[in-house]
Amino acid sequence: MKIKRIEHVAIAVRNLDAVRDTLATLGISCDHEETLPEHRIRLAMLPIGESALELLEPQDETGATAEWIRTRGEGLFHICLEVDDIEAALAELKGKGIRLQDEVPRSGHGGHRIAFLDPASTAGLVVELVEMTGAH
Amino acid sequence: MKIKRIEHVAIAVRNLDAVRDTLATLGISCDHEETLPEHRIRLAMLPIGESALELLEPQDETGATAEWIRTRGEGLFHICLEVDDIEAALAELKGKGIRLQDEVPRSGHGGHRIAFLDPASTAGLVVELVEMTGAH
Repeated sequence: MKIKRIEHVAIAVRNLDAVRDTLATLGISCDHEETLPEHRIRLAMLPIGESALELLEPQDETGATAEWIRTRGEGLFHICLEVDDIEAALAELKGKGIRLQDEVPRSGHGGHRIAFLDPASTAGLVVELVEMTGAH
Repeated sequence: MKIKRIEHVAIAVRNLDAVRDTLATLGISCDHEETLPEHRIRLAMLPIGESALELLEPQDETGATAEWIRTRGEGLFHICLEVDDIEAALAELKGKGIRLQDEVPRSGHGGHRIAFLDPASTAGLVVELVEMTGAH
C-alpha cells in the first residue's frame, strides 16, 4: 500500500462561510463547495499545494462532524490519505490488525471512494482513505 | 504572500514512540527525530508526499503542546504552511489585520524559521508559518 499524499486535512466548523472568508484573508481560497446529504454536511475544499483544507459544516445534529464538534469542539478533525486502490489498502490494513470503520468503500467528497479507519487502531487519529475516482 | 504547501500537520501526543510505531503499521514512517529544549518538546517527522505528520510530545507540563493536550486532549494540533519569505508574510498578514503570536520569527523544527499566528485571527485554527532555512 502506497500513500501518495495527504489529500486533505478536515476542519469541523459551525459556520463554513465565516471560516472560508477568514482563510481567504490568509491567501487560502475555496476551490469548490458541495453538500453531501447522506453525510449531512456541507463542505468546501481549499487547495494548498498538492493537498487541501476541507471545511465541514454539519447540517444537523447527527453525523460524525456534529458529534466531533459536540465532544471536541471546532477545529482539526481528520486527515485523508490518497491511495491507488482502496480495496487493496483496506485488505492490507485489515491483515495487519487495523480495524476499519468502513469495511466497504463508500462515496465521499467529490464523488471519490472513501473509507474511514477505526481511530482505536490509529492512536486516536481519525484517518480517511480516498481513491480519486470522482469529478473533483 | 504565496503559500507553497502544507509543510506539516502536527499531532500532540503523550507517548511519541507508541504513536510513531502505530503509524508505521499504516506505512507512514519516521524520517527523523529531534528534541527542542527551548520548546520543551520531542518531535518526530513522518513524510507523506510533499507534507509530513509531526508528532509532538511535551517533555514537561509547560509549553503550548502540553497546554493543548490538557485542554483539548491528544490529536491534531496545528498546520504549518511553507512560505518563501517569512518576514514578508508576517508583515503582509499584519497589514490585513491578522494578529501574530510571534512578531519575529524564531527557530523551530529542523532549525527552520517559524512563527505562529494568533488563533483568534484564524477562526480558532492554530497556524504556523515556516521558511525552510534549516538542515532537514
